[in-house]
Amino acid sequence: MSEAQQENVAGQGQRKGIVIVNTGDGKGKTTAALGIVLRAWGRDMRVCVIQFLKDGKARCGETRAAARLGIEWLATGEGWTWAESGPGAAEACALAGWQMAQEKIAGEQYDVVVLDEFTYVLQFGWLDVDAVIAWLRGHRPPALHLVITGRGAPEALLAYADLVTEMREIKHPFTQQGLRGQPGIEF
Amino acid sequence: MSEAQQENVAGQGQRKGIVIVNTGDGKGKTTAALGIVLRAWGRDMRVCVIQFLKDGKARCGETRAAARLGIEWLATGEGWTWAESGPGAAEACALAGWQMAQEKIAGEQYDVVVLDEFTYVLQFGWLDVDAVIAWLRGHRPPALHLVITGRGAPEALLAYADLVTEMREIKHPFTQQGLRGQPGIEF
Repeated sequence: MSEAQQENVAGQGQRKGIVIVNTGDGKGKTTAALGIVLRAWGRDMRVCVIQFLKDGKARCGETRAAARLGIEWLATGEGWTWAESGPGAAEACALAGWQMAQEKIAGEQYDVVVLDEFTYVLQFGWLDVDAVIAWLRGHRPPALHLVITGRGAPEALLAYADLVTEMREIKHPFTQQGLRGQPGIEF
Repeated sequence: MSEAQQENVAGQGQRKGIVIVNTGDGKGKTTAALGIVLRAWGRDMRVCVIQFLKDGKARCGETRAAARLGIEWLATGEGWTWAESGPGAAEACALAGWQMAQEKIAGEQYDVVVLDEFTYVLQFGWLDVDAVIAWLRGHRPPALHLVITGRGAPEALLAYADLVTEMREIKHPFTQQGLRGQPGIEF
């Protein structure tokens, strides 16, 4: 057993991967995941971001930054467009995203994997949460940090996670002032 | 009046600066501010981060990243070290930090200014919150995005802010599992 593994077993070493869930109805769930991406990049850690239900063609601040920084960034959704393309298309994209996520998580090529908006895939019942967690328990490398974001994280996911934060909306300018999202801040 | 200014007056343009407060006892306040830094950097916006009560010598993931990205990053504190140096030293550092922040905010050289852990300076009574807000109302350029983080944001600051999120701790591995903070994730 390596020193790193021993530390992991002891549960107090620096190399224990943690499972982080950012949930709740407020802002900052994806944004805090991006902050982790920035920190990890600053330490030369290998980072992969998989975005569910988001359009790969969108040129957000974060995707522009990731392209420049050499961070692997995969958008597996078509955006919230199933009104047009039908629910089956969005579900198929999400399932393809999970397959990609499984490869990234199990592949031992990353220190941090972010599954952005993944809770919706569970909420919509496209994937069974217990099956997902059973897979993670069997395949997530002990040192891998896993970050999952989205509203309404299911109880079983919270139970599996090490660190759970609820982002609560106290005041929101878009609903309260009719203000649109600001580039560089919201996207 | 320029088009951008007209949009600001209308209150619905893309260039209206917003005041964001990330508060609460949970994780993710500074981290979400870092996510905004990453987004803004990805859009070639000019970003300045001023950290209060944090030691400029600390080599965190975020300071390493900022140095590489050319983001202006100022740590104005001595860390939580007033047990050694006396409360007067920490207070003096914080006040110098606010002076620096005023120059950065009023100077019109930035699109985004982050005042990290600034709420503590208000909580400790080193600065008067009403005086700070009066100054911001008079000097913050309309297009400047201002991000303030820290626990226990005072009511007057919440009233001034456009977007307030409370990060609530649901589950925390450091208290519950005795696990130390992980490099690249927590710092």
